[in-house]
Amino acid sequence: MTDNSVFPDPTYKDTVLAPLFEGVKTHYAGHMAAINRAHLVMLVETGILERTGGRKIAQALDAIDAETDVAALTYTGEHEDYFFYVEAELRRRLGDLGGALHTARSRNDMDHTLFKMALRTRAETMLAQITTLTDALINKARDEADTLIVAYTHGQPAQPTTFGHYLGAMIEVLNRDAQRLSAAIDNLGHCPMGAAAITTSGFPIDRTRMAALLGFEGPLVNSYGCIASVDYVTGLYSAIKLVFLHLGRVVQDLAFWSSFEVGQLYIPNSLVQISSIMPQKRNPVPIEHMRHLASVTCGRCDMVVNTMHNTPFTDMNDSEGEVQQSGYAAFESGGRVLALLTAFLPACSINTKNVRRNTDAASITITELADTLVRDEGLTFRQAHEVAADVACNLEGAPLSAGFETFQSAFQAAMGQQPGMDRRVFETATSPETFVARRDRIGGPAPAALDAALALYAQIVSAVQNESASRKQRIAEAETTRAAAYAQLLET
Amino acid sequence: MTDNSVFPDPTYKDTVLAPLFEGVKTHYAGHMAAINRAHLVMLVETGILERTGGRKIAQALDAIDAETDVAALTYTGEHEDYFFYVEAELRRRLGDLGGALHTARSRNDMDHTLFKMALRTRAETMLAQITTLTDALINKARDEADTLIVAYTHGQPAQPTTFGHYLGAMIEVLNRDAQRLSAAIDNLGHCPMGAAAITTSGFPIDRTRMAALLGFEGPLVNSYGCIASVDYVTGLYSAIKLVFLHLGRVVQDLAFWSSFEVGQLYIPNSLVQISSIMPQKRNPVPIEHMRHLASVTCGRCDMVVNTMHNTPFTDMNDSEGEVQQSGYAAFESGGRVLALLTAFLPACSINTKNVRRNTDAASITITELADTLVRDEGLTFRQAHEVAADVACNLEGAPLSAGFETFQSAFQAAMGQQPGMDRRVFETATSPETFVARRDRIGGPAPAALDAALALYAQIVSAVQNESASRKQRIAEAETTRAAAYAQLLET
Amino acid sequence: MTDNSVFPDPTYKDTVLAPLFEGVKTHYAGHMAAINRAHLVMLVETGILERTGGRKIAQALDAIDAETDVAALTYTGEHEDYFFYVEAELRRRLGDLGGALHTARSRNDMDHTLFKMALRTRAETMLAQITTLTDALINKARDEADTLIVAYTHGQPAQPTTFGHYLGAMIEVLNRDAQRLSAAIDNLGHCPMGAAAITTSGFPIDRTRMAALLGFEGPLVNSYGCIASVDYVTGLYSAIKLVFLHLGRVVQDLAFWSSFEVGQLYIPNSLVQISSIMPQKRNPVPIEHMRHLASVTCGRCDMVVNTMHNTPFTDMNDSEGEVQQSGYAAFESGGRVLALLTAFLPACSINTKNVRRNTDAASITITELADTLVRDEGLTFRQAHEVAADVACNLEGAPLSAGFETFQSAFQAAMGQQPGMDRRVFETATSPETFVARRDRIGGPAPAALDAALALYAQIVSAVQNESASRKQRIAEAETTRAAAYAQLLET
Amino acid sequence: MTDNSVFPDPTYKDTVLAPLFEGVKTHYAGHMAAINRAHLVMLVETGILERTGGRKIAQALDAIDAETDVAALTYTGEHEDYFFYVEAELRRRLGDLGGALHTARSRNDMDHTLFKMALRTRAETMLAQITTLTDALINKARDEADTLIVAYTHGQPAQPTTFGHYLGAMIEVLNRDAQRLSAAIDNLGHCPMGAAAITTSGFPIDRTRMAALLGFEGPLVNSYGCIASVDYVTGLYSAIKLVFLHLGRVVQDLAFWSSFEVGQLYIPNSLVQISSIMPQKRNPVPIEHMRHLASVTCGRCDMVVNTMHNTPFTDMNDSEGEVQQSGYAAFESGGRVLALLTAFLPACSINTKNVRRNTDAASITITELADTLVRDEGLTFRQAHEVAADVACNLEGAPLSAGFETFQSAFQAAMGQQPGMDRRVFETATSPETFVARRDRIGGPAPAALDAALALYAQIVSAVQNESASRKQRIAEAETTRAAAYAQLLET
Repeated sequence: MTDNSVFPDPTYKDTVLAPLFEGVKTHYAGHMAAINRAHLVMLVETGILERTGGRKIAQALDAIDAETDVAALTYTGEHEDYFFYVEAELRRRLGDLGGALHTARSRNDMDHTLFKMALRTRAETMLAQITTLTDALINKARDEADTLIVAYTHGQPAQPTTFGHYLGAMIEVLNRDAQRLSAAIDNLGHCPMGAAAITTSGFPIDRTRMAALLGFEGPLVNSYGCIASVDYVTGLYSAIKLVFLHLGRVVQDLAFWSSFEVGQLYIPNSLVQISSIMPQKRNPVPIEHMRHLASVTCGRCDMVVNTMHNTPFTDMNDSEGEVQQSGYAAFESGGRVLALLTAFLPACSINTKNVRRNTDAASITITELADTLVRDEGLTFRQAHEVAADVACNLEGAPLSAGFETFQSAFQAAMGQQPGMDRRVFETATSPETFVARRDRIGGPAPAALDAALALYAQIVSAVQNESASRKQRIAEAETTRAAAYAQLLET
Repeated sequence: MTDNSVFPDPTYKDTVLAPLFEGVKTHYAGHMAAINRAHLVMLVETGILERTGGRKIAQALDAIDAETDVAALTYTGEHEDYFFYVEAELRRRLGDLGGALHTARSRNDMDHTLFKMALRTRAETMLAQITTLTDALINKARDEADTLIVAYTHGQPAQPTTFGHYLGAMIEVLNRDAQRLSAAIDNLGHCPMGAAAITTSGFPIDRTRMAALLGFEGPLVNSYGCIASVDYVTGLYSAIKLVFLHLGRVVQDLAFWSSFEVGQLYIPNSLVQISSIMPQKRNPVPIEHMRHLASVTCGRCDMVVNTMHNTPFTDMNDSEGEVQQSGYAAFESGGRVLALLTAFLPACSINTKNVRRNTDAASITITELADTLVRDEGLTFRQAHEVAADVACNLEGAPLSAGFETFQSAFQAAMGQQPGMDRRVFETATSPETFVARRDRIGGPAPAALDAALALYAQIVSAVQNESASRKQRIAEAETTRAAAYAQLLET
Repeated sequence: MTDNSVFPDPTYKDTVLAPLFEGVKTHYAGHMAAINRAHLVMLVETGILERTGGRKIAQALDAIDAETDVAALTYTGEHEDYFFYVEAELRRRLGDLGGALHTARSRNDMDHTLFKMALRTRAETMLAQITTLTDALINKARDEADTLIVAYTHGQPAQPTTFGHYLGAMIEVLNRDAQRLSAAIDNLGHCPMGAAAITTSGFPIDRTRMAALLGFEGPLVNSYGCIASVDYVTGLYSAIKLVFLHLGRVVQDLAFWSSFEVGQLYIPNSLVQISSIMPQKRNPVPIEHMRHLASVTCGRCDMVVNTMHNTPFTDMNDSEGEVQQSGYAAFESGGRVLALLTAFLPACSINTKNVRRNTDAASITITELADTLVRDEGLTFRQAHEVAADVACNLEGAPLSAGFETFQSAFQAAMGQQPGMDRRVFETATSPETFVARRDRIGGPAPAALDAALALYAQIVSAVQNESASRKQRIAEAETTRAAAYAQLLET
Repeated sequence: MTDNSVFPDPTYKDTVLAPLFEGVKTHYAGHMAAINRAHLVMLVETGILERTGGRKIAQALDAIDAETDVAALTYTGEHEDYFFYVEAELRRRLGDLGGALHTARSRNDMDHTLFKMALRTRAETMLAQITTLTDALINKARDEADTLIVAYTHGQPAQPTTFGHYLGAMIEVLNRDAQRLSAAIDNLGHCPMGAAAITTSGFPIDRTRMAALLGFEGPLVNSYGCIASVDYVTGLYSAIKLVFLHLGRVVQDLAFWSSFEVGQLYIPNSLVQISSIMPQKRNPVPIEHMRHLASVTCGRCDMVVNTMHNTPFTDMNDSEGEVQQSGYAAFESGGRVLALLTAFLPACSINTKNVRRNTDAASITITELADTLVRDEGLTFRQAHEVAADVACNLEGAPLSAGFETFQSAFQAAMGQQPGMDRRVFETATSPETFVARRDRIGGPAPAALDAALALYAQIVSAVQNESASRKQRIAEAETTRAAAYAQLLET
């Protein structure tokens, strides 16, 4: 078979190589430079490369950096990719010695190393956005600890609680999401360098040193796994998806609360789109944007995760640069959701007038009346429920707290006697304020219970932030160490 | 509740309004201009707007077009979006009359109209890429009608067939995918204009005329559905997903065929990435890129479809511009897969030497020997199978066609007599060429059967292309009509 | 390598073979019997099998049927699967002749044939459920053609329309969903029989006859495609997913409408779950069940479709029985959604009192007032909008129709004169009845427009039902033909 | 509006209530009994219920248990669900007192508590299956520490390694999957009881005691979150999905390795399906079953997770019993994959003859020759690569290790002198055994490196198993404590 064709085929160049080159320019050139420097330091430190050669390569890398405007490069097809472009530049300057930098490594281990470096930055940023949101919500929850709202089940008014209590539920989920994300970031912390193509190297490389120079916790152990396992990607995007899946549920509540008829959530003018002709129509469009941006973010996470489905360990490319980059859009859209929600929720307030209207109309404190009859009047549960139900059915639109006479009649009818409680006690027993105050169990809406919970949540946020800070510090220190070692190399 | 906040909140501006504005500039400004012109023509034609006013608005629209570099606009927050920007420009020039253009319409019906216009262009391009690929495959299949390959089941060599026959299977799926996509494009063919906000208008609008002026088949009927139904989106992306899901399966075959050990598919140098140190290692990397680009495309389709999940009819925004735009990435990545595969497959060839090696090693014509024994030697199926199995087990590495003596012994052992067929007949009966030639049933690999099938496939491709051509002509004619009507408006 | 192990490994038997056997018993045994009979008829008709042998096999198949309680069979591991069980029974009765039934076919073509037979029944049932629902909705829409509702955008009251009009929007989507599903069922209409293992057969089989005997439109052409292409599965489940994705959006509207505060939709007692203590709390739980059953159905469709992702053509098993069966759960859950919605929606009614309350509170007819000022009072749009906005802002809780004095003041302030319209005209112009009546454009809510649309929808439903009836008749006729041919075989 | 309809509507009964009842019978009746007993103990211990009443209820619960054959119950519609059935039985026996058991709780908190109890059992079983698999793989890896295989990249032979090394890569991923799953199980460890309907209770309940009596680590704090947050579900199924997504990638390797032409993996007869006519065709069908069962499992996980998408906190039902139960199918199919793989992989062996054949044919040790030339002959990398490439291109089918003369010529041509190494050194340098032995870096395939890695993996498995054991012990102790407290209740 004669084959006179020459790489690259023009269509392959246009559809794959050129886009890949652009992606490397934007996302990975800096990380590749860091890897080059760390690897060079390690090669010299282990004696795989002697110092003089090391210094020359170091000087050449600096020269290339100084003379190259990466952003201005255009893909020509002369070199397969950016990696080969840099290698060619080295060889142009150093001759054969230029090739020595690639001793005991491969594009395989380099790629997954720089993918992890690119992901860890983005993931820490997102984690910080989450904890910023959570901090804001904790503050809001403290401010709204006494603000009554209607709590719904099955989309129907069910019981009174406070806005702070509701936010506590949201915060708990966010905290667990943040913990899941932080664990997924930990899973980016092991360095593939030294795996080389598949099996490490016959040269006496120091994988632990490489990991340290690049800010990793240590080397990822199995060298085949270093280049073949993708769970650092799938685990991360699975964790991110959950954040936005769960936020989307809160967003649905916000949409319902801000509907004209419910009117529980007041959204300030700065976040409402108005119709020129219907000044009373206030469209809470940011809520809809958060919903679909969250959905799009979930979809982008799924896209990355599912791209790995049924692909062989054997293949390197299903987790390569372009797939990685397609995933970065999830950070972009997700980041916007988090930023917007962090601005949105604290800016909103509860329309207490509407809350009171709905509370009254739906008699949502009636269960507390029944409980009170059991506790204070000695009724059985059945008797108490019968009296309460009788009251609820005969209020004729009046609020429950104004239904003392209705209550007296119902009590008399059921028990054949007047209740012990007077009007004042009745009004207290049926007020939403009482309802909330009496629920001071662990996790309840009463102020003390909520305070304790919020303190706990703040501790969790701090713990997550500390984990993040410690990882970032490790990376910062590695940069310092790497720069120092590199400077020493240049000096020798 | 005092609310001194002013729209837009800076975070909302940054996270939503500015990105939306950029998206409209890139994707929708031209379609919006077309809608403006068509609507103006219709308003004047129906007498809703008198001619003089119509002419002034037409002139102003032309002036705005001439004076505005849309690409250079920056979002300032002064106008909520690009629509309001244009309206403000009209009012600046025409005073109150500027607002008359928006009579009997709404951003709701305009948005879905321009989304459909943006999608139909992209979808027709993708459909054309598919039929181009199919045409190329039909040609390739004709060229390879006699080229033997090993057909696999369960990943194991099973029977001989031809490359042309295999491509036929692929073409059939592609044709059905093209038909599904063409049907989905038909579903973009009804125009929402005239639905206005929800319920059409009290003005005597002409929805049929509007549809015609914008290249639609007719108006989409129910006006609430015009702004709330999203199946034109979900149906389209579902159809696109299937194209790439199915291509991904072919890609997996190509990967297997091009593995070193199987070696059935030869990929030319122009499409193989080589290792500098291992010249014999030919990495068919384009295959892997096609696989993950196809997967990413599937994921992007799912993203759009699933964004609609559990969103209310009531809300306009889950199918709005940003979601629409996130979907366009599917056309981009999918288009690259189609272009690459169209270049790739015709450039590949079958390595007949390896095919023969694998054919022989796996004795894959053995079933035809058994069938021959039934037909020509009068054996029962069981007897025939026993003889054939006996032969297959005793070839000791020799190709089946060289196993006449082994066959004689097996026949003798089973039947107590020598077979009627001689060596020549045996060799013929066990050759892959015979195997294929005898399978001239409908859909079989024999040349006549394949020819008939390919002719049928070509008809289907033509039919799909005709559907597309007819839709495109409708749109082209609408543009002519619209321009003429607009010119007339300017003249009056 | 010595290998004394014997098939089947006990774990393989337990985890794969036994479950598969159970599945065949439940779902495929009847279809396999039909295929056996049709194939036998074809073999004899084409002369591949002589008549006497054919009659004996026919008798044996009848005897096996008569003597076997399929449901009572237990998997023993003696035969690999149910197919081999039947073949063994044939051989036990007929000796070598028993094997002749398997001439010119394979489990590969048999499997996909019976999978299609199993799917077409289920899919037609689901399609019938959809058209039953649509019929019910058309009737309901006719009944509710004059029933006013509030139409929402962005979750806020926007304009008046009718319940019938809303249902029309829903019906349109359902009709398109039904058309997509019907097209997907058409795609089940081509028969794989005759493909045999991969490449058809050397025997002179009649694929067209086989297709006819089994109720297919014709043979599926490419024989490799017959056993390898799975788009009949993916296309079907994609179409089904869309049905439930779209219904889920309607369900979200129903949930909103039936909330206590909106109260637009009245759900009868028979479909509301009540709390014993809060008699006024009516939980519309069926809505929630429809939502999650629809979601689960979507998920089951995705599961089947995505199982095909990145699987090779080469492999037969990713679309085999167990995957097929896992998909049937989608018909089960989806069928329940359709049945429940068909019972639910017609049983619901609009709470006209609440609709009026919300209409008035939100002044949703205000746009028509502005339009009227343009049409009847000669105001410019800007003037009209200013007057209308002024009115809307000064109603102080009164319904718009009671705001004639407010209107007079606003008009006077803006125009410096009194309006031409009197109180009666004003009241008419601002009534929701007028609003709807004036919107008699194509697709609008006015009675005539809706009537025309409903007539159109009914035609589409009929067309879909006719397609289905014609397919079912084809299958019924095939059963008759097959039985007759088989009877003839037995008699010869 | 007159409404004479009576709950339940027959369709609702058939499509929702009856299936739910069946599900509770199968999955939750036992957990509900445990909750009833724990709650009763807590009510008496806190004094909310006095001892005498408590004893009577305890006796009645025991009597109901003794007299009810849960499996035999049929849904009648008389009681809304199983919960009400039990309550009715209590009331039938105890009158009003029967209702007292439901003090300070709700079906809301009960449901999520029993869902967690049902999930934790299943999840621990799956985790145990994973660690059993991992243990088996570690043993297998130890046994196969010296067994050479070909390692592939891009589907092409790349370098020698050992089967043990490959398994190490797989084990690492499994260990991380197990850790993720164990973390997700930890997230099932907090008890919703005491949340009651939404807001806890006015009664002085002891949530910590309830949690302890039911084997939880403690109460889940925020009471709204107890009934509304679903991340215990989504987090768990996300973690499970990853297990099977990753296993599916290994399965694809196994499929490739076991192809006829590659032939690296030998699958014993007990796990191979054979064709009667082609005895040499060995179909590794269990691999395909593992692939699609893994895919189906992934799909089932997605189904559950995505059902929560865009559902409001407000609603209880999107995570209710039927959705929960639809997810259990993931444990069923996933459990089968794990069981089969645990039987399959240890039963397989490497076909060393084929490995050697492929190793030789692809010259996959060539990189080590180049490295040796750098290390031992003092060549630059470029020189070494040129020599090695020259050798690889001129072997003419001979194995590299037999290419000493070719090497000598290449060396001479490039360097103008003979190499220092003799034939023996050359043969050693190019043998796969040497290749592996020299790669004794962290994570490499050399025996010591692999040993160290396997010891580390075993520690991780133990740690995960200890976490599981400790959780199970907590539950077992809770059962003991609960039984004792209950017995005491009965005695008082």
